[in-house]
Amino acid sequence: MVDYGIKFWSNDDFIIENGVIKVNYGKKPALIDIVKDVREKGFKGPLLMRFPHLIEKQVNKLFDSFHHSMQTYKYKGNFHAVFPLKVNQMPHFVLPLMNSSVGKSYGLEAGSKSELIIAMAYTNKNAPITVNGFKDKEMIKLGFIAANIGHSITLTIEGLNELETIIQVAKEMGEPHPNIGLRIRLHSTGTGIWAKSGGINSKFGLTSTELLEAISLLEKSNLLHKFTMIHFHIGSQISDISPLKKAIREVGNIYAELRKMGAKNLTAVNIGGGLAVEYTQHEGNNNRNYTLSEFSGDVVFSLKEIAKNKKEKEPDIFIESGRFISANHAVLIAPVLELFSQEYDEKALKLKEKNPPLIAEMFDLYKTISEKNAIEYLHDSLDHMESLLTLFDLGYIDLQDRSNTEVLVHLIIKKVIKLLKHKNHNDIIRIQEQVQERYLLNCSFFQSLPDYWGLGQNFPVMPLDRLNKKPTRSASLWDITCDSDGEIAFDSSKPLYLHDVDVTKEEYFLAFFLVGAYQEVLGMRHNLFTHPTEFSVIIKEKGYEIDRLLEAQTILDVLDDLDYDTKEIERILKQKIEDSLLLDEDRKKEILGQLYIMLSENGYLRTIINGEKE
Amino acid sequence: MVDYGIKFWSNDDFIIENGVIKVNYGKKPALIDIVKDVREKGFKGPLLMRFPHLIEKQVNKLFDSFHHSMQTYKYKGNFHAVFPLKVNQMPHFVLPLMNSSVGKSYGLEAGSKSELIIAMAYTNKNAPITVNGFKDKEMIKLGFIAANIGHSITLTIEGLNELETIIQVAKEMGEPHPNIGLRIRLHSTGTGIWAKSGGINSKFGLTSTELLEAISLLEKSNLLHKFTMIHFHIGSQISDISPLKKAIREVGNIYAELRKMGAKNLTAVNIGGGLAVEYTQHEGNNNRNYTLSEFSGDVVFSLKEIAKNKKEKEPDIFIESGRFISANHAVLIAPVLELFSQEYDEKALKLKEKNPPLIAEMFDLYKTISEKNAIEYLHDSLDHMESLLTLFDLGYIDLQDRSNTEVLVHLIIKKVIKLLKHKNHNDIIRIQEQVQERYLLNCSFFQSLPDYWGLGQNFPVMPLDRLNKKPTRSASLWDITCDSDGEIAFDSSKPLYLHDVDVTKEEYFLAFFLVGAYQEVLGMRHNLFTHPTEFSVIIKEKGYEIDRLLEAQTILDVLDDLDYDTKEIERILKQKIEDSLLLDEDRKKEILGQLYIMLSENGYLRTIINGEKE
Repeated sequence: MVDYGIKFWSNDDFIIENGVIKVNYGKKPALIDIVKDVREKGFKGPLLMRFPHLIEKQVNKLFDSFHHSMQTYKYKGNFHAVFPLKVNQMPHFVLPLMNSSVGKSYGLEAGSKSELIIAMAYTNKNAPITVNGFKDKEMIKLGFIAANIGHSITLTIEGLNELETIIQVAKEMGEPHPNIGLRIRLHSTGTGIWAKSGGINSKFGLTSTELLEAISLLEKSNLLHKFTMIHFHIGSQISDISPLKKAIREVGNIYAELRKMGAKNLTAVNIGGGLAVEYTQHEGNNNRNYTLSEFSGDVVFSLKEIAKNKKEKEPDIFIESGRFISANHAVLIAPVLELFSQEYDEKALKLKEKNPPLIAEMFDLYKTISEKNAIEYLHDSLDHMESLLTLFDLGYIDLQDRSNTEVLVHLIIKKVIKLLKHKNHNDIIRIQEQVQERYLLNCSFFQSLPDYWGLGQNFPVMPLDRLNKKPTRSASLWDITCDSDGEIAFDSSKPLYLHDVDVTKEEYFLAFFLVGAYQEVLGMRHNLFTHPTEFSVIIKEKGYEIDRLLEAQTILDVLDDLDYDTKEIERILKQKIEDSLLLDEDRKKEILGQLYIMLSENGYLRTIINGEKE
Repeated sequence: MVDYGIKFWSNDDFIIENGVIKVNYGKKPALIDIVKDVREKGFKGPLLMRFPHLIEKQVNKLFDSFHHSMQTYKYKGNFHAVFPLKVNQMPHFVLPLMNSSVGKSYGLEAGSKSELIIAMAYTNKNAPITVNGFKDKEMIKLGFIAANIGHSITLTIEGLNELETIIQVAKEMGEPHPNIGLRIRLHSTGTGIWAKSGGINSKFGLTSTELLEAISLLEKSNLLHKFTMIHFHIGSQISDISPLKKAIREVGNIYAELRKMGAKNLTAVNIGGGLAVEYTQHEGNNNRNYTLSEFSGDVVFSLKEIAKNKKEKEPDIFIESGRFISANHAVLIAPVLELFSQEYDEKALKLKEKNPPLIAEMFDLYKTISEKNAIEYLHDSLDHMESLLTLFDLGYIDLQDRSNTEVLVHLIIKKVIKLLKHKNHNDIIRIQEQVQERYLLNCSFFQSLPDYWGLGQNFPVMPLDRLNKKPTRSASLWDITCDSDGEIAFDSSKPLYLHDVDVTKEEYFLAFFLVGAYQEVLGMRHNLFTHPTEFSVIIKEKGYEIDRLLEAQTILDVLDDLDYDTKEIERILKQKIEDSLLLDEDRKKEILGQLYIMLSENGYLRTIINGEKE
């Protein structure tokens, strides 16, 4: 059976049992049952499912792991964490996140004024807020307001001008002041795609020279006692742990140096984000070379060592993991609308009495192909196809001949695959690229998997059921946008196989996992497709409940968002119907009614093939 | 003087005169004056300027060029065009577009239901509508409604199932029917990044075998007379024209074949989009190898030849150019907030009485460097820096030594550049990467230049003024998101130089050109930054007028869009202020007032450095 690499990516959040994929919690509901449930309520199209229990699970794992490491090494500093809102600002994620972490020192990180407002409204009492990124005077004032209303807030300085503005605002607004953090520009760099956010040429952080100037500025303004944290970030989705250890050594030395220079309230090191998520479905393609406990152990041990060597207090540890906390809580469900089969059988072949010589030859290849000559004949037929298509372009053969060429090539490839089934696996996979099945999905990759488009990020994908049947079709996935980039092509280095389903008769759904980090807010409205219908699944003792359902936007809402005058659009369309010379009065009313219904529905596809509802 | 490659990309839409960049139309207003004008009205942050006269210019150029080619070759078919809405669906583009094309056979192309609604509301009378992409029954019905209210609409079929649905709807709804187009899956493929939208493995179109089946289906349903168009698309932004000619030959043969098979109303060939825009700022980096007149000439001539050879009627030509029509109408203006200089002068160097040997040696290198040994000494100093940073990580040198290391490396690089100024240009450019100036821009690249993030697309960028002064700083550009991808790094193969400006004293603005295609609708809300403030500049005889101004979204609007309960947020924050033990009653009122103002402003940066308004 194909398990779609679930052991690599699922962390036991989901399991396969009796041919379906289930939530590994409570009564273990099957995803397919939840999907059918919601569809019966009338919500079709793409669905984004959230699992709040998985949010809680990740927060607990993070705290447990660091607490365990701190106990193991008898570490004296405390552990704090914040969730960086840029990774997921959606209320249906943030509110459950804050609910799950009551009683922990777990808060929110903001990188813009809008995010800071969310943090100020929803961070739990006594939990920390950190503010990174470039800040104007207004945002700094907002930080002071947060301190005034009792938040434990730290403003991380990205440049000396920001520090000057803080000093100015401190004079204007007086006590209480927020804490001040300084972001270090590291010499050591991370690995992975996002590595450039660490490193000496990074967009963020202060050089040593700037650090010294910052300390001197703080001293002069009597604000040195508010400087409590140094911060670094070696990059998102750290694949290899050794650069992190190197960075901690570097930052640990800076921590000790700054304390020796008089920064006595500097008691915290913020190691930023970067804790990776394993997305791979295929052995040997791992995204990270460490476990969570190795990660926490290395961080705690490295900081302990430096404190010991430098004879300084062991610092509190702050972490800003976003991907690790949020990725697994959300699953995208995409209904398969259609299989664009290019698999022709012999019936499709309509040979003439007299065929062009190359077609006759291809037919001969097809008839006489054997295990021994399979690859040779395959190459010959692909060669002939090229020649025949050129003959068509030059007007020498007709459309029927061209069609016969296509059909013969497909028949030959299929026969080759059958003949070589027991032979070298890689050869076969490569040939399967030629006969891949195209699965049309009712979703937009631009809207729901933007990191696939922008960064080539792979998300684990699998069908919801039929998991006790062997999938036989090498699959490429198409979304419904008018964009050729809206395709996840079959890739023989990480092949995807799906089932051969007649979707006019039975339903087939694909799930994309680990889509809870970044994908929602980066979602693009290409072709005006909006966010999918989303909902939370609350796992209860006796089953589950659907909560916080938010339907995909209607067409009128989308147009309103673009700043169209939707009243005008309705008026114009109504007028055009009324003016039509082709319609009688009854028909006008009927058409107007149909139009209004469509305007109030979302833009994803609904009724397909043979009048079956999607 | 540096002209930022304006001769390559501007098409004379914009010109440089007296040190500023101007609109080359009417009284030739300078962009800097328009920007100052709008900022004085209180609209700061990033600005998106639209120039409706450039929309009209492009439509006219397209029609003129094809009409000219048709006259030249005495072509008997007609020319029609549609604008593909997916490239820009914004009302402030679409409505002026339709206004500029009254009287021409110029309509809209839709790829989703929302887009089709726009097309039905705003396409000019007698202008064509085409519908591409995957369609459900509702969308096909919408197409029939469009036909009923008098639109000249063609539904392009992407798969046989769609055709079956059309046949079904035709039975249900009766006459009038929309026209039917068939999309061809080409054998020949395009070049360029988007080439896969053409070609035999493309997401779109029918194979020859499917074409034959489609014709037979149409015949059986008595709908063959509604089949009027074949369509193909070899990819967006075609860099090389020869694949287009090849594709036209292929499609021309299919056109002739289908007509011979009885499709007598097949009278149009739709060549799709792909007409490229030249984005380059640097000689030898061209994005296309043809002119518009070559493009139209080749299309017309190729179709004429095939019609002649096959003795068929010369087909009407449809085109779906989107990028060519819309890219140049919009310009993004980003205010420079700050220069993150890492250029230290000797004052920053704070050598000790006794320095670590490597630092003493670096200082010696700095003092004795000459034209002859410059490169050698540079390499030595970079080497020493690596060693010194390692010594710091191991605790052997202190923060002041580390700072001196940074300063010395910068001083040496600067001296090398000065010494070698007249030497090999490429060497110098490569070294300049080390001393690049970082310009912080008040905008989000994710929001306003998504194709830069996703596809590495370059947009021409230049300052609005100081163009009679030589720019001296090798520049990298940072946006204000908390994301290391929000950076356009200095690239020595296409170097960008900007001016050395003290932004605390004077304003400096960068303009990104050719952002009118795709960038708006693909804009991502990373860190919750929304669309910039946008407006249209109407050039009049005596000057210009600002029209259709739409401000960037306020923070409350953004949170509302994410489905936050903004009333609850206001209530919570108000309550927290009221509950604060740190504030007296007057202060509470004052802070509440400040908070309300911030919530009603947009999230871009406002007041920076020294209290100066951005």
